[in-house]
Amino acid sequence: MTDKTSNAMWGGRFAAGPDAIMEAINASIGYDQRMARQDIEGSRAHAAMLAAQGIVTDSDAEAIREGLLTVLSEIEGGTFEFSTALEDIHMNVEARLKEVIGEPAGRLHTGRSRNDQVATDFKLWVRDQIDAAITGIDALIRALLTQAEDGADWVMPGFTHLQTAQPVTWGHHMMAYVEMFARDLSRFKDARARMNECPLGAAALAGTGFPIDRHMTAEALGFDRPAANSLDAVSDRDFALEFLAASSICAMHLSRMAEELVIWSSAQFRFVTLSDRFSTGSSIMPQKKNPDAAELIRAKIGRIFGAHTALLIVMKGLPLAYSKDMQEDKEQVFDAADNLMLALAAMEGMVKDMSANRPSLEAAAASGFSTATDLADWLVRELNMPFRDAHHVTGALVALAEGKGCDLPDLSLDEMQSVNTSITEDVFGVLGVHNSVASRTSYGGTAPSQVRSQIARWKEILA
Amino acid sequence: MTDKTSNAMWGGRFAAGPDAIMEAINASIGYDQRMARQDIEGSRAHAAMLAAQGIVTDSDAEAIREGLLTVLSEIEGGTFEFSTALEDIHMNVEARLKEVIGEPAGRLHTGRSRNDQVATDFKLWVRDQIDAAITGIDALIRALLTQAEDGADWVMPGFTHLQTAQPVTWGHHMMAYVEMFARDLSRFKDARARMNECPLGAAALAGTGFPIDRHMTAEALGFDRPAANSLDAVSDRDFALEFLAASSICAMHLSRMAEELVIWSSAQFRFVTLSDRFSTGSSIMPQKKNPDAAELIRAKIGRIFGAHTALLIVMKGLPLAYSKDMQEDKEQVFDAADNLMLALAAMEGMVKDMSANRPSLEAAAASGFSTATDLADWLVRELNMPFRDAHHVTGALVALAEGKGCDLPDLSLDEMQSVNTSITEDVFGVLGVHNSVASRTSYGGTAPSQVRSQIARWKEILA
Amino acid sequence: MTDKTSNAMWGGRFAAGPDAIMEAINASIGYDQRMARQDIEGSRAHAAMLAAQGIVTDSDAEAIREGLLTVLSEIEGGTFEFSTALEDIHMNVEARLKEVIGEPAGRLHTGRSRNDQVATDFKLWVRDQIDAAITGIDALIRALLTQAEDGADWVMPGFTHLQTAQPVTWGHHMMAYVEMFARDLSRFKDARARMNECPLGAAALAGTGFPIDRHMTAEALGFDRPAANSLDAVSDRDFALEFLAASSICAMHLSRMAEELVIWSSAQFRFVTLSDRFSTGSSIMPQKKNPDAAELIRAKIGRIFGAHTALLIVMKGLPLAYSKDMQEDKEQVFDAADNLMLALAAMEGMVKDMSANRPSLEAAAASGFSTATDLADWLVRELNMPFRDAHHVTGALVALAEGKGCDLPDLSLDEMQSVNTSITEDVFGVLGVHNSVASRTSYGGTAPSQVRSQIARWKEILA
Amino acid sequence: MTDKTSNAMWGGRFAAGPDAIMEAINASIGYDQRMARQDIEGSRAHAAMLAAQGIVTDSDAEAIREGLLTVLSEIEGGTFEFSTALEDIHMNVEARLKEVIGEPAGRLHTGRSRNDQVATDFKLWVRDQIDAAITGIDALIRALLTQAEDGADWVMPGFTHLQTAQPVTWGHHMMAYVEMFARDLSRFKDARARMNECPLGAAALAGTGFPIDRHMTAEALGFDRPAANSLDAVSDRDFALEFLAASSICAMHLSRMAEELVIWSSAQFRFVTLSDRFSTGSSIMPQKKNPDAAELIRAKIGRIFGAHTALLIVMKGLPLAYSKDMQEDKEQVFDAADNLMLALAAMEGMVKDMSANRPSLEAAAASGFSTATDLADWLVRELNMPFRDAHHVTGALVALAEGKGCDLPDLSLDEMQSVNTSITEDVFGVLGVHNSVASRTSYGGTAPSQVRSQIARWKEILA
Repeated sequence: MTDKTSNAMWGGRFAAGPDAIMEAINASIGYDQRMARQDIEGSRAHAAMLAAQGIVTDSDAEAIREGLLTVLSEIEGGTFEFSTALEDIHMNVEARLKEVIGEPAGRLHTGRSRNDQVATDFKLWVRDQIDAAITGIDALIRALLTQAEDGADWVMPGFTHLQTAQPVTWGHHMMAYVEMFARDLSRFKDARARMNECPLGAAALAGTGFPIDRHMTAEALGFDRPAANSLDAVSDRDFALEFLAASSICAMHLSRMAEELVIWSSAQFRFVTLSDRFSTGSSIMPQKKNPDAAELIRAKIGRIFGAHTALLIVMKGLPLAYSKDMQEDKEQVFDAADNLMLALAAMEGMVKDMSANRPSLEAAAASGFSTATDLADWLVRELNMPFRDAHHVTGALVALAEGKGCDLPDLSLDEMQSVNTSITEDVFGVLGVHNSVASRTSYGGTAPSQVRSQIARWKEILA
Repeated sequence: MTDKTSNAMWGGRFAAGPDAIMEAINASIGYDQRMARQDIEGSRAHAAMLAAQGIVTDSDAEAIREGLLTVLSEIEGGTFEFSTALEDIHMNVEARLKEVIGEPAGRLHTGRSRNDQVATDFKLWVRDQIDAAITGIDALIRALLTQAEDGADWVMPGFTHLQTAQPVTWGHHMMAYVEMFARDLSRFKDARARMNECPLGAAALAGTGFPIDRHMTAEALGFDRPAANSLDAVSDRDFALEFLAASSICAMHLSRMAEELVIWSSAQFRFVTLSDRFSTGSSIMPQKKNPDAAELIRAKIGRIFGAHTALLIVMKGLPLAYSKDMQEDKEQVFDAADNLMLALAAMEGMVKDMSANRPSLEAAAASGFSTATDLADWLVRELNMPFRDAHHVTGALVALAEGKGCDLPDLSLDEMQSVNTSITEDVFGVLGVHNSVASRTSYGGTAPSQVRSQIARWKEILA
Repeated sequence: MTDKTSNAMWGGRFAAGPDAIMEAINASIGYDQRMARQDIEGSRAHAAMLAAQGIVTDSDAEAIREGLLTVLSEIEGGTFEFSTALEDIHMNVEARLKEVIGEPAGRLHTGRSRNDQVATDFKLWVRDQIDAAITGIDALIRALLTQAEDGADWVMPGFTHLQTAQPVTWGHHMMAYVEMFARDLSRFKDARARMNECPLGAAALAGTGFPIDRHMTAEALGFDRPAANSLDAVSDRDFALEFLAASSICAMHLSRMAEELVIWSSAQFRFVTLSDRFSTGSSIMPQKKNPDAAELIRAKIGRIFGAHTALLIVMKGLPLAYSKDMQEDKEQVFDAADNLMLALAAMEGMVKDMSANRPSLEAAAASGFSTATDLADWLVRELNMPFRDAHHVTGALVALAEGKGCDLPDLSLDEMQSVNTSITEDVFGVLGVHNSVASRTSYGGTAPSQVRSQIARWKEILA
Repeated sequence: MTDKTSNAMWGGRFAAGPDAIMEAINASIGYDQRMARQDIEGSRAHAAMLAAQGIVTDSDAEAIREGLLTVLSEIEGGTFEFSTALEDIHMNVEARLKEVIGEPAGRLHTGRSRNDQVATDFKLWVRDQIDAAITGIDALIRALLTQAEDGADWVMPGFTHLQTAQPVTWGHHMMAYVEMFARDLSRFKDARARMNECPLGAAALAGTGFPIDRHMTAEALGFDRPAANSLDAVSDRDFALEFLAASSICAMHLSRMAEELVIWSSAQFRFVTLSDRFSTGSSIMPQKKNPDAAELIRAKIGRIFGAHTALLIVMKGLPLAYSKDMQEDKEQVFDAADNLMLALAAMEGMVKDMSANRPSLEAAAASGFSTATDLADWLVRELNMPFRDAHHVTGALVALAEGKGCDLPDLSLDEMQSVNTSITEDVFGVLGVHNSVASRTSYGGTAPSQVRSQIARWKEILA
């Protein structure tokens, strides 16, 4: 970045001039240049409206609109010289516009102010990120659906407290994440609908006396309507906070899945093999494949929720309307958005590439009397025992098996009946992990039939 | 709280028994008793479904449902003896039910588990709080609308950087908060719709083999549908996090308004007089009225966002399905909900009771050349000056007025013309705060006509 | 809690009286009664000083001091009736003192104010918690030292990325936590030293004209000196924030150890067996022992850092001196302190009770070519290879072993020399996990000799 | 940044190669290049030690040490080409070193690993920032002392609840901040002492078998001692968290002072005039001086505590030793450090430049019966009234004055005696703001004599 000029736009009142510290703390051009495209889009819409309303001439508006395209191409081409003395992207663009088209540039700022301009630019930027999040989550869900479809009937341990509780299916586990990420999707969509009101024309804070048409600019920029209160329009950062809140919950889901992948990749679990693409190795321990991408994804919740914390603290207790504190909004959202998109893409890639280790999963699922609950349920269902009694009978049977060093299906009917005489041969139909998962056909249960029906439902929704 | 019995339900395996530390860290009955009504509602719906599906007999179900009402009345009547050894509200209720109705009590827990039961109870509790928040915000909005209506044309300074920028109206300022709180309203409504899926029947984590009807219990409890994945259903706390996220943004809005009320109540501003009901006094300084309620409301964002932080950290990196960590969810949400409702009620009360000090507001609005922007806009509009040139002419006129120790409307036409010869008599029509605000008729602007039209719009929406 | 009287102390100015909402938001007696002992200690010291300085008579001071002991015994005996109308513990105590001793009670508040009184009480409370934390951490460190001593030479896998990297010793792993908790200890000690300045006598905010002796009260209450600026003394909450910051880092350490215990308790790892006292079971799956205490400890970082977040947000941007917002400080610190102490005690108990599963640890340590680095180091050390070259040779040897399905020590010397001819018989001295750990004698390394020397160092420090 | 080579150092195992997503999420060179100087310092110390211990030859060590200086000069001169494929600063430096000096470069990494290397580099970086914070705070304190000295006896209102409570002095108010920032200073110093242990030589996680001398490298790098446990040394980030915690409290203090400056700069307060250097203006409203720097400083607490939140969340529940999650530590600390230093410098500049508006301060101090407390104290002291009774008498006198529209000193003795006959002429000696502040001579009180004595104390401490 080169400062090519001092900021003549403030007028001559600051004899001293902002010194290096002030410039460092005050200028935002170092980061808000990321909003260049949005700024120019907003200005082009504004110019078109000014002409349509007869506030500027058609030829001035045309000059402005064309000049802005020139500036945009310079920025996107990397030839634009940003100036810190001009503080921000808005002043940088406007100053360059003046160089390019001369006098008409001065008419662009009619009926608006930097306050509504920055709010509009930032909203457009955040809206783009919401769209990117929706795309990224959609892709991740599709990758999960493919895994779920492949393994709709692969058995694996269902954990509570990281202890084997009951057998479930791989497909069912994958579909649990589909539910989570689908809620994220819906959260981002709600946020998008709520924030889609255009601040442009709120001016400094009070609206304007120029006969502007805010509905026209709102429509041109893809907003549903103009924001209905000019004080609110320039001092509202809800849209950024809601984006960060939705991103934080999404990052939490990612952290849970990442944690599972890290644990599942350990030599002790060996439930899953991650691809080389998303692991790093050691030059001397060939079996060592570090799940770096999963760990980094797990960590992203830190900075994303940190950004949420940061912006919420900034906004706490700010009187209306605009306060300079609010300039601290952008870097937080930029960083959170970048990292959310990266984490979603990396997780999608990992899910696509990973392969489940079916023998390990099945062996783990079968260990630890994992179908004891099925036995208890059978006692309730078939022998009409109260549930709590059935648990005690089951406990005794498990103790018997444990004493013999075998699993429940390995007990003989006689041994079973030594605990409770009413037990019949039929009981063996619910023991064993495949029987167990197949039986859990309640809506949303782990039975392969249920899992397949949920996959079908989601495919239809996403189609 | 008295422990009246040790927890026999775990069976006899824990020879040592949980000692005092374990009991202190493990038991939740100290706080989750607040979910007693929801727990009993859920169990009653479950019992009715079990009977309808022929899983328990009608008479058992009836005994359970009546017995649960008895337990509820004991709890609500304050005669219930909670036991820490029974750990949580679910076990306390079930143990008491057994005392009241005997054997059928043991059949209630068929086809469900504590994991889906607690998720259901907590969701019902949070849903009630969402409804309470919606009611509280609605009432606050109505109080703001009344203030806005009364003062639609009272002028006051519009601030940026806490410096007077342009005159606005009291009504406009109040309506800015209506917009904020209306977004909060919409955020809570979206959260309610998204969370309104019933976990009951997900059982421990895998669903169940009993032929339960999850749609029936979902409907009985006012849910839109059963949760579609049993692993997700027991390990999802999104609904609590989204409630906390929405509460945090709402608390942020409250903190901004509270800050303004504190500043406006200072001897230096005197913009507003808070009622005695929401202030505290000093026995010796009669003029001193401390805006305690406003300060406490301002502070509430701390604990509400603190609760959000707490729960998000708890959920970070938890493998599926249920982990005991999740027991830390309730106290955070309870505290945040209590404090949000209290803050909303206190703010509604303060807004209803407060009186604006119109002379102070108007005097402050008129000071500081606050209509200089109006003058510049006039130059642009009437003399067709480019905006940036108009600013320089205005600067010169302000300097002239400042030098003479007067305000802009006090300059003579000759003096005006000494700076720019094209200025005409008409210019005086835009100077002065009432002219200024009246002119800002752009959509969402501060003109009383705009403010009244927004009030009408909101009244219709809320009707 | 019963309100037995309206608050006559505010005087008659509030005709309306605080209504229910205001009382609910304003009163702190519901929680600040926990500071009763500190409040009475502070008042007794103040009364003694007032008499020593001749500000009140000796007999009045004596009456006050005795009366306060009576009040304290009522509170500790559970017979004190707290009144919400009297708002806080300070007013409750003073009102009761007046009932007990009559007129002299009115002289106690000379030369102080509620602002310095509450700051003093709260500091005393926090200081007690710092002492409790120090005691709790000390006990935990001793439990870790015992584990370390027992297993100074038990080998286990050292993980990076939850992948086996190199063998380490159980003692070394335990001692890593000793280092962490010892830093916590030192952090709490520093916090205690820094905060140990007495606010009493700062009065409302400006000091007082009474000839009080602040050094005397400071000393009586165990402070190192009086706080040196009265404005700061009543508006400082650094001590609470620093307590929360130190508690947060300590809770982070606890969360890491708890995570390890949860993972190590899984059926897949089986590195450790937690005692029944700190686990919960399932009535039907006898092998299932849920590490509930570990999970709850892991979760505590949420609410502790949530409390830190809450108080920091409360303090953000508060003008001097006292603002009512600061009343929100106590509940956060109370909750964080209670939970930190509980988590420390539970972790100490778990560490004492847990037993390492040595065969599992050793088997896991030996798997995965975990001594490949030792081999590479030997090549560097003995054959003078550059480190990067040695890594390539080692890689080739590992590939050779992997191809043969054996581990490194199982290769013959010939096979070794087929990769690099300079390798000698001596190489076998560094292969194998016991050789590996024994060799790592660098300061702070995992060699049992190093571990024992660190244990000895810490025992001496803690003696 | 240009990728000039693929990362050959991982060996040939990753056929697929890390693709763009993995590279984006995995590489840290984009930010950790800020640690180049620390990395090279650490490596130079390591090389010198290797030679001193006979692990490498003197000539190799010399080549390494000289080569590293060459690399550093390339980096500092801006001619170094950073490669993303080489991931991080450590690999970039080492790869370039190999180009510069050839084979001996491969011997540098003997007896260390990237894990201890990165911990050492980062600690050195953080330690430098602690030193920078100490310098910045020291300068700010000196600026405050100058303000305090100038205005040791200027009266101003002392606020509670932003309501005038009692008069204080400007010097006293400035000194309140000196106390706060002095605690920050001491907090950073404690953090520095605690973290000053050297991780170098901990190697990957287990220490090393090479006969390294960790005390020598520790000393060469200015550490007090080597870290005593190698597992802890590579997985400890307490030093970063403690830096962030101390920075957060310091930022909180800055936010309070900044809030006061914003309020004091308002047209309604006019207590202080900020210099042009730290304000921004409006081209058309010449009187408008926006306190931008103060607002931005106020906001900094957001991102600094956000960074603290982020890193604490990252560290939550990480098993030992190194996990890749920890790579997320640096950006948070870099950003927080940059912003803290900037905020300190800006505040120092503002404090130096600002001028108090003495007439406004004094007028505000005298308003609102601000010396009513002095009157009550006089009644207690001179007439021996119980404090609570004195308050009632004062209340009556204030009501009398209020009724007459005058202030307390304007009442006649007769009028005073109409309320209480014992009042004497002497009472007038305590009324009036100058009398009031002069009387508050208790230690740490607002009397100019006390303020001057505190200034003298601090000057001596800082000398």
